[in-house]
Amino acid sequence: MAPYRIALIPGDGIGITVTQAALAVAGKALPGRLETVTFPWSCDFYLQTGQMMPQDGIETLRGFDAIYLGAVGWPEKVPDSVSLHGLLLPIRKAFVQYANIRPHRLLPGVEGPLRKGGFDILCIRENTEGEYSGAGGRVHQGTKDEVAVETAIFTRAGVERILRFGFEQARKRSGKLASVTKSNAQKYSMVFWDEVTKEVAADYPDVTVSHYHIDAIAARMVMDPQSLDVVVASNLFGDILTDLGAAIQGGLGFAASANINPDRTAPSMFEPVHGSAPDIAHLGIANPLAAIWSAAMMLEHLGEPEAASRIMAAMETTTARGIGTVPGRDKTDDITHAVLAALD
Amino acid sequence: MAPYRIALIPGDGIGITVTQAALAVAGKALPGRLETVTFPWSCDFYLQTGQMMPQDGIETLRGFDAIYLGAVGWPEKVPDSVSLHGLLLPIRKAFVQYANIRPHRLLPGVEGPLRKGGFDILCIRENTEGEYSGAGGRVHQGTKDEVAVETAIFTRAGVERILRFGFEQARKRSGKLASVTKSNAQKYSMVFWDEVTKEVAADYPDVTVSHYHIDAIAARMVMDPQSLDVVVASNLFGDILTDLGAAIQGGLGFAASANINPDRTAPSMFEPVHGSAPDIAHLGIANPLAAIWSAAMMLEHLGEPEAASRIMAAMETTTARGIGTVPGRDKTDDITHAVLAALD
Ligand SMILES: CC(C)[C@H](C(=O)O)[C@@H](O)C(=O)O
Ligand SMILES: CC(C)[C@H](C(=O)O)[C@@H](O)C(=O)O
Repeated sequence: MAPYRIALIPGDGIGITVTQAALAVAGKALPGRLETVTFPWSCDFYLQTGQMMPQDGIETLRGFDAIYLGAVGWPEKVPDSVSLHGLLLPIRKAFVQYANIRPHRLLPGVEGPLRKGGFDILCIRENTEGEYSGAGGRVHQGTKDEVAVETAIFTRAGVERILRFGFEQARKRSGKLASVTKSNAQKYSMVFWDEVTKEVAADYPDVTVSHYHIDAIAARMVMDPQSLDVVVASNLFGDILTDLGAAIQGGLGFAASANINPDRTAPSMFEPVHGSAPDIAHLGIANPLAAIWSAAMMLEHLGEPEAASRIMAAMETTTARGIGTVPGRDKTDDITHAVLAALD
Repeated sequence: MAPYRIALIPGDGIGITVTQAALAVAGKALPGRLETVTFPWSCDFYLQTGQMMPQDGIETLRGFDAIYLGAVGWPEKVPDSVSLHGLLLPIRKAFVQYANIRPHRLLPGVEGPLRKGGFDILCIRENTEGEYSGAGGRVHQGTKDEVAVETAIFTRAGVERILRFGFEQARKRSGKLASVTKSNAQKYSMVFWDEVTKEVAADYPDVTVSHYHIDAIAARMVMDPQSLDVVVASNLFGDILTDLGAAIQGGLGFAASANINPDRTAPSMFEPVHGSAPDIAHLGIANPLAAIWSAAMMLEHLGEPEAASRIMAAMETTTARGIGTVPGRDKTDDITHAVLAALD
């Protein structure tokens, strides 16, 4: 069989380290079946070229079966607003990766900050519009009269497709879906989201829908995460909830993410939830598990569920042995080798 | 001395119960010095009159020394987007209560959901503009081409004053301030906020500023809340962080809030962070401690710090005895009586 062609964008900081780890594991799970091409697009690339990726970057990526990205951003070199709008965010939008899927549960052996474990949450984040539309402006810049506006744009197509995707996932799991808005304060965008949720729900009578405001569900993720299953949220609310999900699952070092184009009209992209962490970039202690988990999601998406399951099992063997379970304690390489060994 | 004139808006659901409790405690702490006038503005009022408050509601409130509000909203009766935009939000804006102050710490005897306690966070939330500006609209409503937009509006005056307020608080506490944005994704509003933070910081060389993205600080509130002290955030981000703060302090039943007009050009408003909780409204188990704590903040603001301290001490005596420490276990009346008794 022809190998899968993967575009690797290691990015910045620990993105580079964890990408190596993740691809080593994925390569061992699917020997000889992954062909990778590495793109050095990053903040350093920006400093050299004035762009986060070449003009034809999107077209270059389009031909691949999947994209694997480490992490982007290094605020001391390039403002985050430039680096993210120059690389990560345009890929999500251009390839209509409208479903950002992020699983939150405790790996065996991981304690997490909450007294009570036993949760299993799947966050489905809208990934192409909403509060990340990039629409806005500033007037009277630098003066006392300055005003800045930022407009969230929600389309029916955009809201409906992510909700349908969420309902499908809920159907496959417990049949429970939580829809997240802030319709008591944002009376245009979020009331609209609530309305579309009700309409789509009519097509899924077997799914029980709960409506939460973002503040209430954020509290719930800490107080009672066991009560949640599939959570569908807008781009910004999903961003916040998935960092919270990462926190309750023990830290950003465990949180995986898949930016999916469900219609497969363009490549999907896989990346850990964590950032580039410049402060620990040279210490060799980045936890590669989030990245490895994201690679498993990639293999699953490519149609290799068996290899994906073997990676998950190897990760669980590793953490059950107490390796990689405490943030900052174990070396990246030691954790990676333990996962590789568990794959044998 | 002339009594303080307090406008009471019990509102809906448990708002009514906890307002009674809070005012009983405040009245005992400052005997004969609180004169209250009660306004029945609520969702029931809306069902009768078609308005959440009378046309001249704001003008009526303007003459008071302070406003005490229980909780507003009962979605089965009136959509939240109507009830909140008809009562709570216009009061905050009309009276320029631009600083919403919310303290988060564990009362003695309260366990909280986190393994590790020992945090003491003061959230300062912008309360009059930003993501709650109420600007937006919808086109092609009800059709497949519908688009909804919601515009966050940030003014220099609005951003600067809340940051200055935050820096003043930081100066009085540990000298540490966390400023919260999402400038990697929202390149107009949040980059603006970051810039103003840097400018204002120049006037406070004794305060150490950290910049966090909302997702990262949400995770931090769960992973390492001990590392935070004064947190300044926009209207929406402050809303989310303070529900999270409530969660880590043991639940919404403990989270107090003061909507302050620092220039004292209009009355300030005090309210617990929790909502009206229709589901438990008739059970008599609402925790009144958040409401009582909010009343203590009111007395402090009115210039009665000694009475405020006595209320805080009485609350702490109560929870140290194990009363009111577990959500839903004790009766509202029992908790209130314990606090009243501890005031003797
Ligand atoms: C880096 C940033 C722009 C990004 C986001 O907000 O989407 C990240 O936080 C994430 O969750 O993938
Ligand atoms: C009820 C709602 C509009 C309100 C808000 O979002 O400000 C509440 O959540 C709060 O925190 O006071």
